[in-house]
Amino acid sequence: MSGADVPPGSIDTRPTRLAVLRDALARADLDALLVSSLANVRYLTGFSGSNALLVITAKDCILLTDSRYATQVEEEVGGAATVRIESTNLWTGLWAQLGTLTSVERIGFESTHLLHRDFARLLEQGNRWSWRPTTDMVETLRAVKDAGELAHIERAIAMAETALRHTIPMLHAGLTETAVAGILERHLRDAGSEAFPFPSIVASGPRSALPHARAGDRVLEVGDFVLLDFGAVTAGYCSDITRTFVLGRASDEQREVYDIVREANLRASGALRVGMTGMAADAVARDYIAARGFGEAFGHSLGHGIGLEVHEEPRLARVVESPLAAGTVVTIEPGIYRAGWGGVRIEDDVFLSVAGPRVLTGFPRDLHELS
Amino acid sequence: MSGADVPPGSIDTRPTRLAVLRDALARADLDALLVSSLANVRYLTGFSGSNALLVITAKDCILLTDSRYATQVEEEVGGAATVRIESTNLWTGLWAQLGTLTSVERIGFESTHLLHRDFARLLEQGNRWSWRPTTDMVETLRAVKDAGELAHIERAIAMAETALRHTIPMLHAGLTETAVAGILERHLRDAGSEAFPFPSIVASGPRSALPHARAGDRVLEVGDFVLLDFGAVTAGYCSDITRTFVLGRASDEQREVYDIVREANLRASGALRVGMTGMAADAVARDYIAARGFGEAFGHSLGHGIGLEVHEEPRLARVVESPLAAGTVVTIEPGIYRAGWGGVRIEDDVFLSVAGPRVLTGFPRDLHELS
Repeated sequence: MSGADVPPGSIDTRPTRLAVLRDALARADLDALLVSSLANVRYLTGFSGSNALLVITAKDCILLTDSRYATQVEEEVGGAATVRIESTNLWTGLWAQLGTLTSVERIGFESTHLLHRDFARLLEQGNRWSWRPTTDMVETLRAVKDAGELAHIERAIAMAETALRHTIPMLHAGLTETAVAGILERHLRDAGSEAFPFPSIVASGPRSALPHARAGDRVLEVGDFVLLDFGAVTAGYCSDITRTFVLGRASDEQREVYDIVREANLRASGALRVGMTGMAADAVARDYIAARGFGEAFGHSLGHGIGLEVHEEPRLARVVESPLAAGTVVTIEPGIYRAGWGGVRIEDDVFLSVAGPRVLTGFPRDLHELS
Repeated sequence: MSGADVPPGSIDTRPTRLAVLRDALARADLDALLVSSLANVRYLTGFSGSNALLVITAKDCILLTDSRYATQVEEEVGGAATVRIESTNLWTGLWAQLGTLTSVERIGFESTHLLHRDFARLLEQGNRWSWRPTTDMVETLRAVKDAGELAHIERAIAMAETALRHTIPMLHAGLTETAVAGILERHLRDAGSEAFPFPSIVASGPRSALPHARAGDRVLEVGDFVLLDFGAVTAGYCSDITRTFVLGRASDEQREVYDIVREANLRASGALRVGMTGMAADAVARDYIAARGFGEAFGHSLGHGIGLEVHEEPRLARVVESPLAAGTVVTIEPGIYRAGWGGVRIEDDVFLSVAGPRVLTGFPRDLHELS
């Protein structure tokens, strides 16, 4: 959310985010946090540029960026941080800024976002301070969406669904997967998507059995599964949706596999509850698919959080023992993949509140035979 | 380059790359290199998946990935590496694989590609070995393109130029920048581009003065500069091109600025020579722009290498003292940006050989007034 995105009369949630983070810092016995993840910087300050470091202390919030962003940073950040434009290198600026802060000795850094090269800088030029690795301090806050964030995600979903509606009538045998991606992405842009949250997946026929296929030069044929996995972005927030179609008439086998995936999707999204573990959520879909005889064919996790990044906390996976918080938005994306034959995945985005799950994606899940 | 991309009868260059890297390892007194950069993994093995670790020793080349990529890795890698599919976590697999290697003690890792979290794994679970940070060991090889790589880049350039040719007649006042991006990206897909190497920049009017603007919701108006900076990807290789147009009749001031940037572009690409420093190349354009009175208005570097990544070695910038090697492909992209008024950037891709520079992008650089 950028400063410019705060509609008149609405609440700027950045001060609250900062206050909660400061509490967490105090509990972790840290005097400061060095934020190097750009998504975390954006969440805390609104700045969406590609080069930034952010220092949070009990009193200060200092954002360092370079002169390319002088105009943009002012518009986006407003009073949410003290902005320093660095003419040389952000790290040089960082030592200077830290030097002005009193009572700052123990500083956390983001272990999952800092490269070894930059960690070496902390130990060398930054050796006046004591550096402590941290994990997910900001990500934990980001997992719980406020109303403004939820509205952005819903808008990103609406863009994706509009694009999909316009794309379906244009799909036919003879198109390459890459051409299909072009049609879909054009409609995403026309719907106002400011970016693509990840490389669009268009996987047809046997390639639909590859969960990580992108679009390739395979030509669509009658009888194919056509799997589209894509999203839109607005104000930095992502949507992520998958639908699988059949080109022409579905075979009985295609229909059987499709129905199992759809039922697994519906069961899992309906079963989500606050306090449930990621593991338990994953098991709802996995156990159903296994009971129907396709346990080996669902090789990936059930889902993941979406927000400023398309993969964020929480994770719905076999190994996740932490409970789901109220206010998360997660994908529910079971699939069945059979090498050489094809695959089906149906993915929705679900908001979880104390009142239960609300499926945000409204696009029909009935088996659609493309004519 | 994937195994599947080696045309019949052509030479597989991966063994040569590996041999050169092994020489460099021996000179650096390293028994092995742990490669975690996915672009470097692809360069050495052909594998294009999103999860991999690669270990190179004097004798072995071991690639670790997960079961999602079982089919793909076999097709892409062939005999270029020993492939291990890990069922749990690549790091667990790594310790097991390293344990089987005799005479391996000092192992280099990629300091600019390894996160602190993973560095901590090396020091903890990997404490049987002695870990040494390295920089650019594979990147230095990648900077020099072989004939197959050059052909891929030229194909990616042809895709981008075809898309631009088809886009120009569709540009008119009243379109949003985002809609323009959609038109351009659709044509990139129709030309066969397998991905977008970076988020397309469509910057109009005053926004053309922001070198890092993406496409936004601004509506194109008569009199605007319209700056398009985009590329295509084929077989993993990128192109990167920028052209700036005027919507309607150019003003004298627009024409003056445009002509200066075009002349700076022509001078810089014509002056490139093997052995020249990145700094000297940058100065050719920068000094000319400064002499014409716009020195302050060219805030970024002249250019960068392109290949498997859209920003790679070498860099053409004020601080780069290393000499340009024969066989590099670099962008030449001077610009003039005036806040509130607009900006012009003209970017070409240039192959540098001992015979001198060859500009690969053929798209006209004359000022084009969109009607």
